[in-house]
Amino acid sequence: MENHLWQHILQVRTSSPLVHNITNYVVMNNTANALLAIGASPIMAHAKPEVEDMVSISHSLVINIGTLDEYWHESMMIAAKKANSLQKPWVLDPVGAGATPYRDVVLSEILSLNPTVIRGNASEIIALAKLNNTVTKGVDSTAMSNEAIDAATTLVKNHNSVVCISGETDIVIDKHQCLFLDNGDPLMTKVTGLGCTATALVGAFIGVIENKSEAAAAALSLLSISGELAAKNSSGPGSLQLNIIDKLYNITDKEFNSHLKLTK
Amino acid sequence: MENHLWQHILQVRTSSPLVHNITNYVVMNNTANALLAIGASPIMAHAKPEVEDMVSISHSLVINIGTLDEYWHESMMIAAKKANSLQKPWVLDPVGAGATPYRDVVLSEILSLNPTVIRGNASEIIALAKLNNTVTKGVDSTAMSNEAIDAATTLVKNHNSVVCISGETDIVIDKHQCLFLDNGDPLMTKVTGLGCTATALVGAFIGVIENKSEAAAAALSLLSISGELAAKNSSGPGSLQLNIIDKLYNITDKEFNSHLKLTK
Amino acid sequence: MENHLWQHILQVRTSSPLVHNITNYVVMNNTANALLAIGASPIMAHAKPEVEDMVSISHSLVINIGTLDEYWHESMMIAAKKANSLQKPWVLDPVGAGATPYRDVVLSEILSLNPTVIRGNASEIIALAKLNNTVTKGVDSTAMSNEAIDAATTLVKNHNSVVCISGETDIVIDKHQCLFLDNGDPLMTKVTGLGCTATALVGAFIGVIENKSEAAAAALSLLSISGELAAKNSSGPGSLQLNIIDKLYNITDKEFNSHLKLTK
Repeated sequence: MENHLWQHILQVRTSSPLVHNITNYVVMNNTANALLAIGASPIMAHAKPEVEDMVSISHSLVINIGTLDEYWHESMMIAAKKANSLQKPWVLDPVGAGATPYRDVVLSEILSLNPTVIRGNASEIIALAKLNNTVTKGVDSTAMSNEAIDAATTLVKNHNSVVCISGETDIVIDKHQCLFLDNGDPLMTKVTGLGCTATALVGAFIGVIENKSEAAAAALSLLSISGELAAKNSSGPGSLQLNIIDKLYNITDKEFNSHLKLTK
Repeated sequence: MENHLWQHILQVRTSSPLVHNITNYVVMNNTANALLAIGASPIMAHAKPEVEDMVSISHSLVINIGTLDEYWHESMMIAAKKANSLQKPWVLDPVGAGATPYRDVVLSEILSLNPTVIRGNASEIIALAKLNNTVTKGVDSTAMSNEAIDAATTLVKNHNSVVCISGETDIVIDKHQCLFLDNGDPLMTKVTGLGCTATALVGAFIGVIENKSEAAAAALSLLSISGELAAKNSSGPGSLQLNIIDKLYNITDKEFNSHLKLTK
Repeated sequence: MENHLWQHILQVRTSSPLVHNITNYVVMNNTANALLAIGASPIMAHAKPEVEDMVSISHSLVINIGTLDEYWHESMMIAAKKANSLQKPWVLDPVGAGATPYRDVVLSEILSLNPTVIRGNASEIIALAKLNNTVTKGVDSTAMSNEAIDAATTLVKNHNSVVCISGETDIVIDKHQCLFLDNGDPLMTKVTGLGCTATALVGAFIGVIENKSEAAAAALSLLSISGELAAKNSSGPGSLQLNIIDKLYNITDKEFNSHLKLTK
């Protein structure tokens, strides 16, 4: 699969997917810039009278509940239903799952629409799986990552989704396998919204790549390798934020493949 | 006219116009920074109970429909009507014109208020002119730019607006003439919202300069020359985004005039 | 007190307070990054069904009315009341106070809830105090800064708040004393939202430091010294914006203490 990932990156660059984002205020600028940097075309639109039309002209949909409210909740539902009716792929970023009852009510509704991909950190994936009340605990699930893998496996089974858990190691789980990606840099946790950026990049890749697990793995490894390389020239999180955009734009085949740490 | 443009830039720096922006979430931060960098004072405000008051204290108004919804649509109408009643100049950025029926309905209403200036890319200007159903095709309008010029000419005639078409060559059209600006750098297309920034800068210039075509030409050339110079020191779109802000702030008479490529 | 300030900075780094922000669209990204850079954890959330829950899990609340509208006004009131009922500290940034009657109506309501800290520029603090109709003019209040100090003193008395006036000299006023902070760089006025960032940092510090005046002084001096140092390596406001984030992240004891200009 390693050899496929770079091909997927090239495919996004050449096919320039149109990605419709209903996302949060904090990350809109960075997300749009990250999508442009990898060769995709971002649309940010949330108006209820137009989200169905935007989904119709896009390759994929990104739903991120970071700064949601009642209006945005409705927009997200309309858009996700439209994506399903058109069989277009979409990705859910359950920002802050478990933080408030409101988030969980909204997420429960969105989750019932069976996202193509779900990407969150371990605690969000765990909170999301609990909305189903059916998490099957593995034998050795004491550690957070094991608990998250159990939660992800539950979500894969119940919603037919590919599930990505972001962390020191990124994990991509589908029905058949579990991929571990060991790239990135600790400084990335000090830049706001890189998780949201990861989700948006996943949105671009699933828009044009058939194998959704490979698409997600390509997106996540592209971001974490870019972050790893960018961190070397960054004196803090401010410069890292822009150096990542530069590296997403100019990363080479050799840089990507020589740094990729992928295991199954 | 070339000699006038730098004078206009100096005038904005010294008179520091207050620019009221009702714009999209993606670009608010960059737009505000770009306005500060050229010496203007940005206000971002969209609340219906206050937009008329904000228009009243401002030199000009910027309306950008990028992430509009029903509430923002109403705010834009209230603000534009107030600007007209006070004879204050305002500029429309028809982001995504033609992308959805909703956008076109909203744009049709805003357009009926006859913006002082309209700035968009070729496809947006073409879509906007079609809302009138009266585009007069020129003899040789097969190419996109010719079609856009025809569309712009229609908008100039019907709405008494100055129309700016952004692209590899920026074009400013009014009743009397057509100006061509050949500055910029291809990397600028990889930074989100530079078109929106162009519109905001036009907003600042029309706030204090009587000749609206010259004001628009000064704003567009200031941004594209700054981008052209900034691109030389940028390793990607992330660094370009901030280098443009720096250059807007510290560009000199000599830098501006030696790079300006203006033809009529 | 000088010796306390760096200890407060370290305390924020180690205790990583959760800071709930109901703030404006323009600065959300920068504010979140600044909070992360100093070691705090930002939450941005404004939905009426969840703001009480967010306040409950946070150490402190930041209310910034920059791009308010009716919905956000209600959210702010709900959140501030909840903070009061839980005796959690909160800070008000009265952006644009006095600019429109609407802002003053909203601010009057928020002010009645007695913010723990208020931070604004001189004209905002003066406008805010006038909402009370009870500003006691000092003998020599002809200058703006004296007028602002009178206004701040009124607010301290009427609302039991600590009041911060940002400007060339930052001033922190409580019942007992008046602190003057003389750090910063003029280029900081060309970066949008640094005042809002100051408020957010105050939010982080009051979340974990008992003495609210010292907390505010530590936050303001941390930002202005970081800006002062960052400006030395910045060729304009674009690079300053990110260099400040870097410096907030990596400023040392020695850098801070050798530059601090604090007088009583």
